[in-house]
Amino acid sequence: MNVRVKGRSQHYRTVTFDAGKNSVMLIEQRLLPHQFKIIGTRDFRETALAIKDMIVRGAGAIGATAAYGLAQGARTFRGSDLAKFSKHVEAVYQALKDARPTAVDPVNAMNDVRRSMSSGATVEEQQALALAAAEEFANEDVDHCRAIGEHGGKLIRNGMRVLTHCNAGWLAFVDIGSATAPMYAAHQAGKKFHVFCDETRPRCQGATLTAWELAQQGISHQVIADNAAGHLMQRGEIDMVIVGSDRTLGRTGEVANKIGTYTKAVLAHRHKIPFYVAIPLSTIDWNLRKGRDIPIEDRSESEVLGAWGIIPKSAIRNPKSTYVRIANPSSGARNPGFDVTPAELITGIITPAGIFKPRDLWKNRARFGG
Amino acid sequence: MNVRVKGRSQHYRTVTFDAGKNSVMLIEQRLLPHQFKIIGTRDFRETALAIKDMIVRGAGAIGATAAYGLAQGARTFRGSDLAKFSKHVEAVYQALKDARPTAVDPVNAMNDVRRSMSSGATVEEQQALALAAAEEFANEDVDHCRAIGEHGGKLIRNGMRVLTHCNAGWLAFVDIGSATAPMYAAHQAGKKFHVFCDETRPRCQGATLTAWELAQQGISHQVIADNAAGHLMQRGEIDMVIVGSDRTLGRTGEVANKIGTYTKAVLAHRHKIPFYVAIPLSTIDWNLRKGRDIPIEDRSESEVLGAWGIIPKSAIRNPKSTYVRIANPSSGARNPGFDVTPAELITGIITPAGIFKPRDLWKNRARFGG
Repeated sequence: MNVRVKGRSQHYRTVTFDAGKNSVMLIEQRLLPHQFKIIGTRDFRETALAIKDMIVRGAGAIGATAAYGLAQGARTFRGSDLAKFSKHVEAVYQALKDARPTAVDPVNAMNDVRRSMSSGATVEEQQALALAAAEEFANEDVDHCRAIGEHGGKLIRNGMRVLTHCNAGWLAFVDIGSATAPMYAAHQAGKKFHVFCDETRPRCQGATLTAWELAQQGISHQVIADNAAGHLMQRGEIDMVIVGSDRTLGRTGEVANKIGTYTKAVLAHRHKIPFYVAIPLSTIDWNLRKGRDIPIEDRSESEVLGAWGIIPKSAIRNPKSTYVRIANPSSGARNPGFDVTPAELITGIITPAGIFKPRDLWKNRARFGG
Repeated sequence: MNVRVKGRSQHYRTVTFDAGKNSVMLIEQRLLPHQFKIIGTRDFRETALAIKDMIVRGAGAIGATAAYGLAQGARTFRGSDLAKFSKHVEAVYQALKDARPTAVDPVNAMNDVRRSMSSGATVEEQQALALAAAEEFANEDVDHCRAIGEHGGKLIRNGMRVLTHCNAGWLAFVDIGSATAPMYAAHQAGKKFHVFCDETRPRCQGATLTAWELAQQGISHQVIADNAAGHLMQRGEIDMVIVGSDRTLGRTGEVANKIGTYTKAVLAHRHKIPFYVAIPLSTIDWNLRKGRDIPIEDRSESEVLGAWGIIPKSAIRNPKSTYVRIANPSSGARNPGFDVTPAELITGIITPAGIFKPRDLWKNRARFGG
């Protein structure tokens, strides 16, 4: 999407590849929303570290980063011995996989790249195929998000007030995003609407990343405390909810997403407000039979007990975030990272293949197949 | 309640009066939870400032502070001219009233004090009556909270997990608190239970004040993000909700309270979890006919766009809070301060006179009357 840097608006992807420098180019997301900076990794080890240290985050974005990282690593091999080359690629693969052991996207993306490589007869051919496959993976991610926007954008009408939770924006993908895709499509179609961004405690991705994204595109928006949406719905000030998903069960239509999503779905249901989930196909889990069985990670207590932000006076000199302890020093916290929203609370799942009732995913699974 | 200061546990009230020094003694609540400090105001103007600057906050606490402040002001008058004395007292009354113009408790408390004073025949008698009336107001506040605890404490059984929102604790009253009163009563009765404190963004009174209160009493508790309660309820990990109220409509049973309360009531209702509101009688509004007509204050955007906390490394040297900007710098916020929960979502209203169904307040109003 376009970003205004030093007064000029320029197009960026979250992840790209500089073939001349053999470098994966990433938006340094830990500096957002206070500073916009592109960094280039010098080798696949730095790329793995960028995934590990959350310079890049979000399913689609780390998938593409790993794909490019595999190509980057493959391209540094000197020689023509295919067996040695394979061993080298395997080490690169492991390093990138180990950077975020619980994520499935890097693994799926790198498997795509390896499959492509296997048709090359020489090291050089395989190196070229690796990069082409990584580019294709990234482009497909963009195409899928664009298709989500085409379907979901039609749901947004002039004057609507849309609530979103967390960040399922272009920063979490290669471009465009999932939950934000309908907003960007509607905005490009000239529609006027307003977005409420849930702050999304404890990590505040709504207040930081989603608000930054919408501000860059000039889309009308306001940050609200996670506590405020119920009141706004009660007063008739929210017309639709669109969120993303970390994992959607193809068999039941249940949606795992950032903690607090379930609460918004319950509120929307009470107020008869449409609640949509926008997802790329890669987040559909066709195997798991019960949402109850989705493991919910208990994250660090410090996230709940404090917050990251910049001290306004020092913002220009030092745009790096400072952690402040908010809570009583002798108290602990409970910090479940995700929750599961049942199908009955979801109006529709917006996919690149169209909008489906959550319980209709399974019978349409042939349409989502590779 | 008891507070551990330098290793020793000692009893404190939020507000007391030092007759020798003619000083209102207050817990400096802006320093909590990071520092516990008692300050004394030197005259009624400082007392008014303490209310205005939020050194003391909470309905019962500012009521008692204003009552003591009026006595404090009255006691500085020198002379025996009753007409001049009355004029002086009127000026004190106005200064204390203007310190928090929207609050009703200071006005009600000071009217009590003035009514008592009027039976005095001399300036000296009226001064003595003023102090006695202020003491009585404070003691009544404590008695009411204790009665809430006696009724509400019976609801808490061994092993329960109780959710509360914001701070309706002893810091908001003279002692004991409203929503916390059942917890303190159950704890004193030797029951074991666990409290989840909603962080309560944007001002985080749950993470700071309620967590501090519970820690002081040694009650098992954890802070959770406001987003987490829905998930915990879904997993059967919350057995009861108890909150306070800023205004309860005697005619309809609707409850205005800190933003986010309504959301918790909706969630509790879905999960068939009892939802109680604990209130002193002074917060019942017998006139207003519709919750919709309760004015909802839109508070400062900066509360939502950032947070107050201490920088851990400097905590000992500098226990004062620092404001950090969390949100995207170019984004604004919407910050409604309160919401209204309808009677249908409330299991019971815990009052000093017993526990009532919200819609039964009106027919029992004779029992609440003065």
